[in-house]
Amino acid sequence: MFLLMKPEESISVKKFGGTSMGSVERIQNVAKRVIRDQQKGMRSVVVVSAMAGETNRLVAMGEQIFPGYRGAAYDMLIATGEQVSVGLLSMALESLGVKSRPYLAHQLGILTDSTFSKARIQNINTQKILADAERGIIPVVAGFQGMDSDFNITTLGRGGSDTSAVAIAAALKAKECEIYTDVPAVFTADPRLVPKAKEIPKLSFEEMMEMASLGSKVLHIRSVEIGAKHNVKIHVRSTFEEREGTWVVPEGEIMENPVVTSVTHEALTAVLKVFPLPHGSQILAEIFEELAKQSVVVDIITQSHSEHGQRLAFSIPVEDIAAAQKIVKQKIPNAEIEVMNDVSKVSIVGVGMRNHPGVAARFFRTLAAKGIEIHLVTTSEIKVSAIVDKKHLQLAAQELHSVFSLDA
Amino acid sequence: MFLLMKPEESISVKKFGGTSMGSVERIQNVAKRVIRDQQKGMRSVVVVSAMAGETNRLVAMGEQIFPGYRGAAYDMLIATGEQVSVGLLSMALESLGVKSRPYLAHQLGILTDSTFSKARIQNINTQKILADAERGIIPVVAGFQGMDSDFNITTLGRGGSDTSAVAIAAALKAKECEIYTDVPAVFTADPRLVPKAKEIPKLSFEEMMEMASLGSKVLHIRSVEIGAKHNVKIHVRSTFEEREGTWVVPEGEIMENPVVTSVTHEALTAVLKVFPLPHGSQILAEIFEELAKQSVVVDIITQSHSEHGQRLAFSIPVEDIAAAQKIVKQKIPNAEIEVMNDVSKVSIVGVGMRNHPGVAARFFRTLAAKGIEIHLVTTSEIKVSAIVDKKHLQLAAQELHSVFSLDA
Repeated sequence: MFLLMKPEESISVKKFGGTSMGSVERIQNVAKRVIRDQQKGMRSVVVVSAMAGETNRLVAMGEQIFPGYRGAAYDMLIATGEQVSVGLLSMALESLGVKSRPYLAHQLGILTDSTFSKARIQNINTQKILADAERGIIPVVAGFQGMDSDFNITTLGRGGSDTSAVAIAAALKAKECEIYTDVPAVFTADPRLVPKAKEIPKLSFEEMMEMASLGSKVLHIRSVEIGAKHNVKIHVRSTFEEREGTWVVPEGEIMENPVVTSVTHEALTAVLKVFPLPHGSQILAEIFEELAKQSVVVDIITQSHSEHGQRLAFSIPVEDIAAAQKIVKQKIPNAEIEVMNDVSKVSIVGVGMRNHPGVAARFFRTLAAKGIEIHLVTTSEIKVSAIVDKKHLQLAAQELHSVFSLDA
Repeated sequence: MFLLMKPEESISVKKFGGTSMGSVERIQNVAKRVIRDQQKGMRSVVVVSAMAGETNRLVAMGEQIFPGYRGAAYDMLIATGEQVSVGLLSMALESLGVKSRPYLAHQLGILTDSTFSKARIQNINTQKILADAERGIIPVVAGFQGMDSDFNITTLGRGGSDTSAVAIAAALKAKECEIYTDVPAVFTADPRLVPKAKEIPKLSFEEMMEMASLGSKVLHIRSVEIGAKHNVKIHVRSTFEEREGTWVVPEGEIMENPVVTSVTHEALTAVLKVFPLPHGSQILAEIFEELAKQSVVVDIITQSHSEHGQRLAFSIPVEDIAAAQKIVKQKIPNAEIEVMNDVSKVSIVGVGMRNHPGVAARFFRTLAAKGIEIHLVTTSEIKVSAIVDKKHLQLAAQELHSVFSLDA
């Protein structure tokens, strides 16, 4: 097919989240915004989430019918929210006199594997949306969903619409992908927890990935991975304001990196402490294999030895406490299990850490100075994370934010 | 593929309506009922409607965004209700230990034309559901929807899930199709209007078609057409009771036909009276062409001549009054238009009429005896219909029901 434009030059992939699509009126505003860009000569491909609250409603019905079930029927159920959004936004564009075409994953050929509820995109056929864009038609695509090779509907996990959008941008060889959301940018910390938090104008893919895995809800982690791999810059910005937000870009494009870019937290997590463990590492392998098999995501693990025996502690999502307890009890019937479910995780992230030794030490000193006990800790090249009592979370976050020079 | 069973012998297509699927608990009951039949050796293919109220909710959102719009985006929107039902029922079956597979129209290959919101089914590929049924897997299929040759989602019109079910039964060469609903059977009249109404055990396809076109909401008219054409008996029965309901069958299978089988009504309709009309029939053609173009379904038309000129009267759905008035005004600017919007249609239906002359006369006499004025009238071989004032509807229906020996 002959292309009138070079796609990488003029196609803009825009993703609108649940709050942006939260009502008929907001959907009409999204349509107006897309049309304004179209009138400036920009060709848009729009990716949408379900209206705010809709996926929760669908999940709740599914859980009532068959708690914990994951399979084709469940993904078919929870994928309907995005379908409603696509229909409504496409109609809103048409009502404003602009041609639009609605697309579900199977209509576009968004092929994924068959891991229901956390499928991974394998291929996207861009032929139709390119042809549309060329003719001035605005394609509206359902985020969050895919199709496996058996034509089943799959979903990409909560927040997966970000991933749909960045993957489409990558397939189109677009240079950037706009993620429209209800916050104006990515912040140095959650402003509800740390009022002195400020906007971050630029952030590296690597930092954003760490932040997403450490509890930041701004972007789906997989979307950042795809952006990094295919060199698609991600622009996180507000649906309700015109100005720019945060650019997530390759590290090389950031002139000067602060030591720490952000303080990230997860308010609710749980720790299981197990003592004593039998000798040998066989039992540890067995426990964590079984946890993985039952889809319990273990975060931090520590193991220590004392004269009284081996100790194990690991953190898991609170909803998995019962499952994890059961597994440990089966494997080590005599061990004592202590559950801490009133704990939070606080982390600092920054690629600048690589060149600044002593960041972890400063992290520990900061919390110690405030009398905040650390239950578990883990570090990587660009992050330090600690589990603290939930009552200490806010103080810890604010102190770290201040000590690492992030306060506005 | 080698089939272990002859499909026509052992496959039962069951359709469950919105009320039957109205809540999580009801969906679980539907699952139990299907499983009971499965345990008796019956192989079921289940077709479902959207949960009660869901399609209305979706339609209302669509109308807010773009009133009157019909196209791919609208059908995509309103098709989500059935998708939710399929996911939930398939999960409910699985939760009870029975294998099930969810199917949307495109996954099954329910091909339709591209007339959005009133598409007609052209072909159904039964390979997958036959293979499922053979292996004891229960296929759950979304009613109401189809796919056109461009992979757009289409819908079949309100009540279209009946048509999906009967069409699937026809494609499977099944001898019958069960329509589970919130009433135990088809009645000789609406029991809310005529308390002496009674159940009809057997009814001909032709009568059921007339009744559906005259206001009976029990079955989608197209489903009856398909049943008649492919010789699929339709069994209308209650989801909430075990006993049989009404069988809709070829006329030849009914031993003795009563003269009148049912009194059917449409509570709300409208009549436009136009006077005087210019001479010639050209203007009539223009008016009705334009009405058709704007999708206004005209029901009864009468035209009469007097010394003062030509008179025209026709009945239309109340929601189309404004559109119809506008069209008439454009075509005949000088005509007086009288709108009657407080009128109802009452009809009698029965294949027995063919062999009993004088039924229409008896119909008129019955209403005249009660002082009920008839505004418009139309007859066919097996029905007599009249437009009467709405305040007379109940009396007219009850009198006709009694005079034609239908009272319980």
